[in-house]
This record gives sequence, C-alpha cells and structure tokens, in this order.
Amino acid sequence: MYKLSELFSGVCSAKGFFADGISAGLKADNAKDMAFIYSQKECEIASVFTTNKMSAAPIRHFRTKGEFKTNFVLINAKNANAMTGKVGITDIETILSTLPNNIINPVMSSTGVIGVRLPQEKIIAGVKLFDFTKKEPHSAAKAIMTTDSFSKEKAFKVELENGTAFSIGAMAKGAGMINPAMATMLCFITTDADVSKDEMQEILDEVTITTFNAASVDGDTSTNDTVMLLSNKISGAYNREAFKEALTKIMLFLAREMVRDGEGATKLVTYKVTGAKSDKEAEVLAKALSNSLLVKTALYGEDPNWGRIASTVGASGVDANEETLSISFNELCVYDSGKLLFDDAMEIEASKIMKLDSFSISCDLGLGEGKFTSFGCDLGYEYVKINADYRT
Amino acid sequence: MYKLSELFSGVCSAKGFFADGISAGLKADNAKDMAFIYSQKECEIASVFTTNKMSAAPIRHFRTKGEFKTNFVLINAKNANAMTGKVGITDIETILSTLPNNIINPVMSSTGVIGVRLPQEKIIAGVKLFDFTKKEPHSAAKAIMTTDSFSKEKAFKVELENGTAFSIGAMAKGAGMINPAMATMLCFITTDADVSKDEMQEILDEVTITTFNAASVDGDTSTNDTVMLLSNKISGAYNREAFKEALTKIMLFLAREMVRDGEGATKLVTYKVTGAKSDKEAEVLAKALSNSLLVKTALYGEDPNWGRIASTVGASGVDANEETLSISFNELCVYDSGKLLFDDAMEIEASKIMKLDSFSISCDLGLGEGKFTSFGCDLGYEYVKINADYRT
Repeated sequence: MYKLSELFSGVCSAKGFFADGISAGLKADNAKDMAFIYSQKECEIASVFTTNKMSAAPIRHFRTKGEFKTNFVLINAKNANAMTGKVGITDIETILSTLPNNIINPVMSSTGVIGVRLPQEKIIAGVKLFDFTKKEPHSAAKAIMTTDSFSKEKAFKVELENGTAFSIGAMAKGAGMINPAMATMLCFITTDADVSKDEMQEILDEVTITTFNAASVDGDTSTNDTVMLLSNKISGAYNREAFKEALTKIMLFLAREMVRDGEGATKLVTYKVTGAKSDKEAEVLAKALSNSLLVKTALYGEDPNWGRIASTVGASGVDANEETLSISFNELCVYDSGKLLFDDAMEIEASKIMKLDSFSISCDLGLGEGKFTSFGCDLGYEYVKINADYRT
Repeated sequence: MYKLSELFSGVCSAKGFFADGISAGLKADNAKDMAFIYSQKECEIASVFTTNKMSAAPIRHFRTKGEFKTNFVLINAKNANAMTGKVGITDIETILSTLPNNIINPVMSSTGVIGVRLPQEKIIAGVKLFDFTKKEPHSAAKAIMTTDSFSKEKAFKVELENGTAFSIGAMAKGAGMINPAMATMLCFITTDADVSKDEMQEILDEVTITTFNAASVDGDTSTNDTVMLLSNKISGAYNREAFKEALTKIMLFLAREMVRDGEGATKLVTYKVTGAKSDKEAEVLAKALSNSLLVKTALYGEDPNWGRIASTVGASGVDANEETLSISFNELCVYDSGKLLFDDAMEIEASKIMKLDSFSISCDLGLGEGKFTSFGCDLGYEYVKINADYRT
C-alpha cells in the first residue's frame, strides 16, 4: 500500500533538484528561453528519443556519450540544433565547456527551428546568468515553451507503508508536431526514488506507449523528441508499483495537456477503440482516427459526422466491416452494427456533445478483444495560422 | 508510330458514347447532380476501386455482379450511399430497375455524404429526365462535382500508322479526401479502342500507380473511390503503346487537376524523390511529403522551410541520413549533403519559388537508384472552412 499526493513544484519536487529559466535573448521581448535542471548528486538517466532519422545534434551528442551519469541538463528554446551536422555537436561541446567544474557530464536539449546553427554567444552568455541554487520550476517550464500557450508541469509525492517517501516531478513542452510515434516534445522528469537505471528505463518505455505515444496533434514526428528521467536516489525509498503509477499519472496528464494545447486546438478528444482483432490493430486505428484531417476538421466544425469516423475505420487498414462496427460519441451510440440510427433528434444530442471541450469517440469493431486509447484534437484556422508563419 | 491529338468532348469523344447531366434536386439551386454515360454497344469494363474496408454500396453492388458487360453508368452527387448496409444495395437495384429495356447491366456510382440512404424518389424522377441521345459531356462532368471548383475532362484521338484511329475520353471529380493509396475520386473513361478486358485492366492498374495513386490532398481514403474504363470497341482500332500513352496522359492530367483543385489549395507541388534505396522507399517518402501537415502549412505560408522537409524525410521511416540528403526547390539546391547552404540571399530566391502556383520540391537521398514522383497541395484556411462545415 502507498499514498500519492500531488505536489506543485514540478522538476524541483524531488529532493536535491534545482531548476530555473532565464532570458538569453533567443525569444523576442526578453521572454525566458533557456532553462537548467541541476541535481546536487549525480543522476542515473532513462531516456526515450525521437525515431526520426534526422535526429538533432543534442540527441546525437547524448548517444555518443555511451553509459554515463549526469547532474545537469541545459535546455534552450527557439533553435532545434537539427540538420546542423558535426558542427552542431561541437557547438554543444563548446557551450557545455563553459559550465563550472562541479557540473558532471552535462547534456543539452534543444527545441525550435531546424537547420540553423545555435547562437553560441547568446547561449554562453545565458549560461552565465544561471543561479544553481534556484528552485524555480515554473520559470524553467516557461522557458522551454515554443508555440505552447501554457506551461506543463505535474508532480507527486509517494508515501510508502514503511514510512519512507519519494517524489517525482516533471515539466514538458509540446504543442504542434505531436505524433503518436513518439509525441514531438521535450519532457524532463526528476525523481529522488532509489530506482536502478535499468528498471527506470523499462518502466519509462512501457508508460510511454500509452501516454506520449498515444497523443497526436498533427501526425508529424520531429527531429528533437526527448523524454529524460533523472534519478538522484537521495530519498533512499522505492516501490515499483507506486513509482509506475505516479509516473503514469504524470505522463498521461502531460500527454493530454500537450494535445489540449495543440496548435489552435479547441477540443481534446479521446478515441477509445475496442473489439479489434488485436491490441496492435486497435492502436493503428486509434492513431488513424486522431490523425485524420477529415475527422479533425469535422471536430472543429462541431459536426457529428460519424460517416468520416466510419470511413477512417475502413481506410486504416485494420480488420473491420460495417455489420459489426459501432460508433459512439460519449455514451451516445450513433451507429450500431450495421443499423443506421442517426436521425434529427440524435443529431441534436450528438451536436451537444461535439460542443464540449473534451469528449470521447468510441469505435467497437466487434471482432475481438484488442483495445487502445489515443488522444487527439481538432484542427482549425489557428493551426494553419501558426504553422504557415512559424519561422517569421 | 502513332499520333495523339487532343479532343474536347470528354466522355463523348469515343464513338458510340452518349452522356449528359441533369438536376434531380439533390444539390441546392437546381445545380446538376446526376449524370449518365450510355454506349450504343455493350462495353468491356476495367475498374479500380477504393481499398477502404467500408466500401460503399455501389462498389459492393458492382462486385457482386461478377463478370459482365454494360452499356450504362448512372452517377449521382451529394449522397455516397455508404454505410447503408444491404438496403444501400436494394436501393440501387430499385433505381436501376426503372431504366428502359435497352439498358444492359447498368451500374451506379455515388459521391457525397456518408451514412444517409439515397433519396430514391428524387433519383428515379431524375432518371426519367435523361435523354440518351444527348452528347453533353461537359454537363455530365459538372453534375458529378461535389466540392470541386471546376470540372475535369481530358480526351485524345489516337491515329495509327495503318490509317485506323480510336479515341479515349474521361471525366473526373475529386477535390478533397484525396490520398495516395488510391486518390479519392470518381473517374469515368470511355474508349472505342478494340482492347480486351484483361489488357485494359492490366494497363489501368499500371497507370493508376503513378497518376491517381500519386496524388494527395489530405491523406484520407474514401468509401467510394472509383475509376471505370469502358470500351465499346466500335473503332476496331488498337495499339497497346499508343493506348497506354494516351491513358497515362489523361490520368496524369486529371490527377494533377484534382490536386490543383484540392479543397482550399493555392499551389500544386510535385515531390520528386530520387536516390532512395528502392522505388518503394522513394514512393513512401514522396507520399509522406505530400501528406505532411507541417509541409502543407509551410507551403500555404509560402515559407521555404526546408527543415520541415528534412524532418519529414527523417520521420518517413525510409533509409536516410543528413550527410547524403539534398533538398531543392525547383532548381535551387537549399541543402546539399550535410552542408547548410541557406542564407538570406537564398531565402529571397527560395521565397520567390514558393510564391509560384506550381513548383517542385526534390529530395535526393543519395543512397541508391530508387525514385518516385508524387503530387500534393498546400493546406490553408479554406480547407478548414470547407471541411468543418461539409454537411451543412
């Protein structure tokens, strides 16, 4: 038995972690654009990175280090340091070499425009502004934002039966280019739990599948996707089940927040697929639904166009047929195993659901036990506006 | 040797074919919404249908007929007769049973909203308005339009060395829901060439790959996609090479026109992928590029954001790396095998290209001989507007 209680100090919730955000002049108007996470004790690291073959320099830099512990992560917004080749990595090395001596094996994480070298001088000047005694998690969470309209943090304290306790806290950014094959995003999770690197990695991989990998804003996968989980073990406490539950709650919350903050999104929709031939087929369909432009624009128009749901089911490639398919908006079944139920009265009911900020669309394929749940949003004018003018 | 010359009478270009469009009150404002194609002699039929598992009633009706010849195709807009189960097929049978006795094995094709039964009375009344002696191909082409902003026709006369000649003519509709896994669309092609059913099917399948299947508007595949090629053999003339060339020219033209008329599209972009490990990998990448929301919105913003092209290459799953990748807008190389070429001067040049109505984006992966070309368009506010309010 254990008890979870929410904390409100993000990546500084676990003992021994410090963080802050500062402005280095990368964003306009002196907005915060650089952040650090510092641990007073070296950390084990578990990580998940993008599957994009054009992975950015910070990811390649991290990977070339092999096995290592660290006590420092430097994060910048506005420039992804992607498609910058070898010079992208030497730029990172130059920047990190300016950190003080007590920093061990520092790593860097970047988000922003692709194909432009890091503005070294600005970043090095920014590093000098860091105060490693600061515990300003909200400031750090704001600094890593790009097109996000709000910052994203979540943390829990976990009290175990034996009287010991540990904490896990996280911050994330991500609002566009969110794809179910690893949500496009940065997420940093800190914990003082006494968990081994291997076990932490195993749990992170498992939880990623149903959280960040189940979230979609626009179906694109970026060059910089990163989830880092840092453990300094200071609490001496650990329980696998409790750790996994807290991590799942944190990552699920952040995944949903990222979709809710999807570029121009006005709705958060949960796609519940059941009755598929396998969990894998359910996953394929759930992601196809959350990525369909026709479904997303119908959501934006608050149009209960269940025909587009049915068409996407058919186009997804999974086993399906109209005689066993059922479709519901929340609890309202609009198509039931080949029966056309939809009439004017139902249209009124369904339209009410479509106007909610958050609702579910369920598809039961009626063929087996496979199930998967994904998260998506609508696509409206704001998405086009944000993405047509991103660089300018 | 043979000579191709363009004709301007669409599906009535080949001898013995009649066609017209009428208004049956399915569309508002008495717009034409039903069309027929009638041949004075029975036709062999080659066809390609959607891969969507929720294929519409007209497609299921066609398939249940087995091997057959026909002299009549009835087409309606505004209602797809999809997700209508068995009643969708009996509705078709009822409607077709009202045709006169000289009509043999008639087939039907529908496009429009999914999940609503055909308005039988209106359609049967419409059928009675058909005059089978009419040769009004443009009227037929207009009647099959849905969200299309212009009708799409193309025809050629083919003169052979031996003095004989045949013709091929086509009409198509399709403006949204166009996906590279069979463009979502209706296309009817008529010919008086003396070609066998099997050979016609073989050529149609082959030409579809690089034309309709290489076109993308929004990556969705509909329930009703249909290409029908009808041959009444009246000319007695045929040459495989000439037939294939004329058919390719027609289908390529129509595929490009459909993308150009993509819902809200302002640009037609040709994606030329070369240097892939295989033609299949090139095809996967070319289609990923034409379907990427981030690329499409950058096109709309006329932003030469080559980083999004690179990111999409990396995300597509095909073998690629930044050291061998090159990217060009028309002839302007903006990224060359790991070298960052992009500066302010190049941005000005690239921006000029992005303002064109039509241009190409080339990606050379530098890894092999695989190549494929696809067609796509941008995604702007109009796409959202059209699709958010489609049913209303």
